[in-house]
Amino acid sequence: MSNVKTEKNSLHSQEAAHSLIAIPMGINTHHEMVAFMRSDCHVCRSEGFEALASIQITHGQETIIAKLYVVDTEKLCENTVGLSHATLAKLKLKGGECVNVTHAPVVNSLSSLRAKIFNRPFTENDLEEIVGDIANGHYNDVEIASFVTACGGDRLSIDEITWLTSAMVNVGERLDWGTTPVLDKHCVGGLPGNRTTPIVVSIVAANGLLIPKTSSRAITSPAGTADTMEVLTSVNLDLSRLRQVVQSTGASLAWGGSVKLSPVDDVLIRVEKVLDLDSEGQLIASVLSKKLAAGSTHVLIDIPTGPSAKVRTVDAAEKLSRQLIEVGKRLNLKVETIITDGNEPVGRGIGAGLEARDVLKVLKGEADAPGNLKERSLTLAGLLLEMGGKANKGQGKILATNTLETGKAWQKFMEICLSQGGLKQLDNTAHTYSFNAPYKGVIEQVDNRKLARLAKLAGAPASSVAGVDWKVRLGQTVEKGQSILDIHAETKGELNYAYEYLLANEDIVILGER
Amino acid sequence: MSNVKTEKNSLHSQEAAHSLIAIPMGINTHHEMVAFMRSDCHVCRSEGFEALASIQITHGQETIIAKLYVVDTEKLCENTVGLSHATLAKLKLKGGECVNVTHAPVVNSLSSLRAKIFNRPFTENDLEEIVGDIANGHYNDVEIASFVTACGGDRLSIDEITWLTSAMVNVGERLDWGTTPVLDKHCVGGLPGNRTTPIVVSIVAANGLLIPKTSSRAITSPAGTADTMEVLTSVNLDLSRLRQVVQSTGASLAWGGSVKLSPVDDVLIRVEKVLDLDSEGQLIASVLSKKLAAGSTHVLIDIPTGPSAKVRTVDAAEKLSRQLIEVGKRLNLKVETIITDGNEPVGRGIGAGLEARDVLKVLKGEADAPGNLKERSLTLAGLLLEMGGKANKGQGKILATNTLETGKAWQKFMEICLSQGGLKQLDNTAHTYSFNAPYKGVIEQVDNRKLARLAKLAGAPASSVAGVDWKVRLGQTVEKGQSILDIHAETKGELNYAYEYLLANEDIVILGER
Repeated sequence: MSNVKTEKNSLHSQEAAHSLIAIPMGINTHHEMVAFMRSDCHVCRSEGFEALASIQITHGQETIIAKLYVVDTEKLCENTVGLSHATLAKLKLKGGECVNVTHAPVVNSLSSLRAKIFNRPFTENDLEEIVGDIANGHYNDVEIASFVTACGGDRLSIDEITWLTSAMVNVGERLDWGTTPVLDKHCVGGLPGNRTTPIVVSIVAANGLLIPKTSSRAITSPAGTADTMEVLTSVNLDLSRLRQVVQSTGASLAWGGSVKLSPVDDVLIRVEKVLDLDSEGQLIASVLSKKLAAGSTHVLIDIPTGPSAKVRTVDAAEKLSRQLIEVGKRLNLKVETIITDGNEPVGRGIGAGLEARDVLKVLKGEADAPGNLKERSLTLAGLLLEMGGKANKGQGKILATNTLETGKAWQKFMEICLSQGGLKQLDNTAHTYSFNAPYKGVIEQVDNRKLARLAKLAGAPASSVAGVDWKVRLGQTVEKGQSILDIHAETKGELNYAYEYLLANEDIVILGER
Repeated sequence: MSNVKTEKNSLHSQEAAHSLIAIPMGINTHHEMVAFMRSDCHVCRSEGFEALASIQITHGQETIIAKLYVVDTEKLCENTVGLSHATLAKLKLKGGECVNVTHAPVVNSLSSLRAKIFNRPFTENDLEEIVGDIANGHYNDVEIASFVTACGGDRLSIDEITWLTSAMVNVGERLDWGTTPVLDKHCVGGLPGNRTTPIVVSIVAANGLLIPKTSSRAITSPAGTADTMEVLTSVNLDLSRLRQVVQSTGASLAWGGSVKLSPVDDVLIRVEKVLDLDSEGQLIASVLSKKLAAGSTHVLIDIPTGPSAKVRTVDAAEKLSRQLIEVGKRLNLKVETIITDGNEPVGRGIGAGLEARDVLKVLKGEADAPGNLKERSLTLAGLLLEMGGKANKGQGKILATNTLETGKAWQKFMEICLSQGGLKQLDNTAHTYSFNAPYKGVIEQVDNRKLARLAKLAGAPASSVAGVDWKVRLGQTVEKGQSILDIHAETKGELNYAYEYLLANEDIVILGER
């Protein structure tokens, strides 16, 4: 086809034909890249753009793909393109600059996504291309939703999960602490209130082990560890601040998103959040890519298991465990797992502020600290002390208990918070509604998923004071009128919304008559 | 939980707390429901809304779910909510009306979508609920993309396809012509230029059979029959106009979308278009739901098969054929199929205007009419004449040929167009680029998918003059410098864009040296 190439120059339009002035639209579209153009704009017309077209906007070295909305002529000046906050930020524009607007290029990796939907496994190269394209903002939300769904259920093999994991590590920053072991822990979630991390990290670091913990915000839960820690200190540390904190305290309790570890994970997570979907292969890639990027060498993974936890059966937990260990091994990461009871919430609070309250009670050794949160934290910390060589097999929990009860863990926790920017006062002022037992009975069953949804409808995780205070335990006898749970919400609208859900879902708690 | 209900009234916020004045934003977001609120808006604050939240907007009997964008305070007056064109239209507002804004309700059918992703089959009730929610605008595009992907590949059983089909019929209008047989034809597509429908319908109707044809616009192809017919006449007929046309001519060549047959199909199709995905189960539900809703009793389905057609192998075509016939049977629709050659384009033009040109040439019996378009149309029309009882088995094609060659089909076609609003003049003025053979050789292979993509990049189907004129046949010897194909585009930008794709994809055509 050499004859085609000779005509190339004559066909190319001039650069000027695609130039427009960038105008801030004052619109917050969150992560979504959205641009606004007049229907009679010369670029719109010459390029044949329609509403919802994918367009490419370039300024200097920065290029993005945005979704186009077309506006009536009086809403924008001629020769301008309106940009949302996220679009301006990604292009590093203030407004008034000249940008180049063209058709978005064909995204070739979408072909391998389509092939996957039709049951052809991904190759290593497919996943590198897809993850690269997502990292560069070339996938819109509809395409990301399709990718997330196509990987759902049991549709990724161990090979595919391994390739996805390493592709996700490769597109972000990767930390190197120059030493080993570098410890880490993770909980696969699904159990409301299970906020052991701040306690475990404090115990492990108090014993001189390196545990630079970065956590995620809530995916489909009412709070992530980063959300809870944000109630108590700053968690948005950049890379150099994170290094300082870890160097001075041997630990951190930071948000992973602000240090750009596995950034594609964050993109996938926000779509998974809309779908309330968190599938196995992506869960493994998400967890292990973050740990690898964080420079961890030894990771303990807590898998709470129960009928309404994220992992419902011991069989499923064992399968997940085997996959985590195998993918870790292939990527040179030592993974141990522990399958824990996932039948009811751990601690009392569900939601960032209420969980922070429970964490402080355990660390300070207060008399009314939730016993199961303390117990579980000690078990996990004990295993990590063994993995890190500070205790012999079976002896870690004794050391962990001693570290907590002597106040050394609380000292270390305060040290970490001060290093991250100070320890904040708890403020749990909220509108509340108490749900009381309608008759004397025994708490026979609780639906963790519905409890989590209740906390989310009350405003968690967006509102730090919102959530549910779960005031009973499975098997406990309650008197008529005794409070079973309180809903906390920042606004009356949200309290009402959660309350309506409670009304419509009487099976959240099953109260047996005695 | 009866104790909860007694407190209901005290918790409910007042209606007024959710009231805002609707303001037209002058923004075309196509089908997407988008609303804009000030970050300091009292409803935003009391309800705890964030950017990208799903909100419910109610006015009188109309309720929609919209995606929220948050705007800076100077962009909207206090106590107002800005609405996009689509949002105003669906709520039947002009602007200035008081609307009620609350959290979007929890969409329960999303649970069965998640279960399906985790390999639990849909029940009949699941699919009724999902289709109902999509019809009511309760699914956003991310959720629809997940549904489409979860149904992709081979993941719907015959039961699921049947339930999906009937759920899709049930949420729209359903025509009843009060007689039988009511004939229809459909091509599963994937073959550029295969525009037999206008010719087939004209031949069948000219023989006195009822064939009220409604067609779709392009899904993932450069043109649908509705796009092609729109070049020649009006296709946006409402239900009463459609009835008039069919009563007076025995046929129609209209766009299905304007009569609201199987409206959820249109919603799914626009997301499938973004994903360039058109999977088997959804294809069957899409085709058969439209046919059932259109009141058809006998349908002939053309399945072009070839390595770069939509259906790639005869095995796949036979499987699709069996499923179409079986689902049809369960829903009381007589389906016959024909597997046709899908190795190269049918006709010359690819794109609405160029295809319309070819259709006219065949109907008018012009000497340079594309032979394969004529031949295929006669085969299909012949089978329909047999299904409708106008010819004995094996004799239909003779009758069809006679109908075409005596000019009766062309008379009928003009009659249909006049009844729909008049026959328009063709205008194929466009920027063109001719791709010529770089050496003497034989056309050995053509990639239909890439040819279709080339036509789309040139601006089809949005631009009716855009597309590709495919000027050769497989096996044909071409001289050096002889034109193999022409690209047609309305704008230089699109011509350039298509041209760059041609440069990067030299394997669109394989030219063997001799």
